[in-house]
Amino acid sequence: MNPKELWFTENYCLDARFSMRVDRQVYSSKSRFQQIDVYDTPAFGRVLVLDGCLMLTEKDEFIYHEMIVHPAMAVRPDIKKVLVIGGGDGGCVRELVKYPTIEQIDLCEIDREVIKVSREFLPQTSARMDDIRVELHIADGLKFVRQQKNAYDLIIVDSTDPFGPGEGLFTREFYGNCLSALTENGILVNQHESPYYPGDALACQRAHRQLSAVFGDAYVYQAHIPTYPSGHWLFGFASKSGQDPRVFDGDAWDALGLKTRYYNTALHKGSFALPNYVLELLKNAEGMGY
Amino acid sequence: MNPKELWFTENYCLDARFSMRVDRQVYSSKSRFQQIDVYDTPAFGRVLVLDGCLMLTEKDEFIYHEMIVHPAMAVRPDIKKVLVIGGGDGGCVRELVKYPTIEQIDLCEIDREVIKVSREFLPQTSARMDDIRVELHIADGLKFVRQQKNAYDLIIVDSTDPFGPGEGLFTREFYGNCLSALTENGILVNQHESPYYPGDALACQRAHRQLSAVFGDAYVYQAHIPTYPSGHWLFGFASKSGQDPRVFDGDAWDALGLKTRYYNTALHKGSFALPNYVLELLKNAEGMGY
Repeated sequence: MNPKELWFTENYCLDARFSMRVDRQVYSSKSRFQQIDVYDTPAFGRVLVLDGCLMLTEKDEFIYHEMIVHPAMAVRPDIKKVLVIGGGDGGCVRELVKYPTIEQIDLCEIDREVIKVSREFLPQTSARMDDIRVELHIADGLKFVRQQKNAYDLIIVDSTDPFGPGEGLFTREFYGNCLSALTENGILVNQHESPYYPGDALACQRAHRQLSAVFGDAYVYQAHIPTYPSGHWLFGFASKSGQDPRVFDGDAWDALGLKTRYYNTALHKGSFALPNYVLELLKNAEGMGY
Repeated sequence: MNPKELWFTENYCLDARFSMRVDRQVYSSKSRFQQIDVYDTPAFGRVLVLDGCLMLTEKDEFIYHEMIVHPAMAVRPDIKKVLVIGGGDGGCVRELVKYPTIEQIDLCEIDREVIKVSREFLPQTSARMDDIRVELHIADGLKFVRQQKNAYDLIIVDSTDPFGPGEGLFTREFYGNCLSALTENGILVNQHESPYYPGDALACQRAHRQLSAVFGDAYVYQAHIPTYPSGHWLFGFASKSGQDPRVFDGDAWDALGLKTRYYNTALHKGSFALPNYVLELLKNAEGMGY
């Protein structure tokens, strides 16, 4: 039998692209906000694509979701109230509910269809959305966060790229509202794009510039996510108290006995050690005029 | 003007592939050992391809070459005699000659054509091959290293993948001969493949298994190399004295004032902190029967 020659291709820039063979298209529909596609692939399992951009694959989504959740939780094990903005696939929630000490998880997703599709077609990622501590808010994250004051110990911005529905989640106004929505020592973590391809690198600089302007110190850490453009992905970490996320009690986290496939406390520390060219990119961002 | 629709594609596995637009083919020829191609690309500059596998791009070869050289040099600043096996493109040599304390660099490349083509078409990478300390040996690395005893403080195995001409450079016999060729506290560093796609992960396990069997402790560190499969690349570090490469004098390296675009001493330490799934892969390798 010949393998099927159906391929999903994502353009990393005008002149580079990544393609995965597709066994079948499982779902395809346009929501009010974006085109949503789900494919079954032999190399990566089931994958979710929004507006042509790969959001997650069953093979490596654990990397992104572990790395956007566990560093903050290791730094502040006393976090009780969490807001996830975006994240309708449920991957952040799945990692958060591993902590019995978390009391409340508000998930604010603009697109109801993303939640519905993830629940139906991506059980590995969405399985814990029914946890009793999770409350769903189908709302624009920008507006939702504007109404919250001193309400969350942790805000996770699990956004799409800053083109399309996710655009507002990379602005100074948004980060300012997040600052007000955080409790005294509250932490904000965001997906911070990639330093490699020029368009992503610019988005990364903008995010860092805005986050730094609002929070003062903003830290950046990295992970290897093979199915994201360049495989080199960054996360931002900023806190109201200016806490250094490299300083934390690793033994205490280990003692929790949580099972992770990417994150560990040595890697946590290592992930904040960035290459020179990335440090330079971020340094230049701080002086950017916008 | 329409952009040219000429693309170079590398298959990462049967079901995933990466493609870059090509402006023009600069060189193409079959040597005694392999097919050699050089392309000009808008996204990555000039690129070198051997037997259809991307070896380097002008945009990110600095990552690979800095990371295969500087960690060992930071751990053992007194290294004087170095053997590079493979590396005909000159990238390792370019990084090594930055150290005035290195007295001798033997480069053993099996394929004379790779050196010739790199000298002609890849000046960014090959520019320092004429350094007075560099001696070229056009020879099979396996045979060359067998004749050396107690001769090198550092051996860098800058090989192609373990399919084709590079195959023998991943065997226990070869590592055993390297051990004999090293001086008392000598270090071996090798490119160690990637943990992500199944074929690469198997190659990585095999390399680790053989290296551990010969050297006892073998350490593994990682780098983000966007144009290699998955972007998550590993390197092996083994030494005759069982030295822990995470322990070194970072200030002393900084005091050398060398200019690097990826490597720095904080990143050096961080690069040895591997994800759980990679640690597990390597642990399983140690128990492999071959």
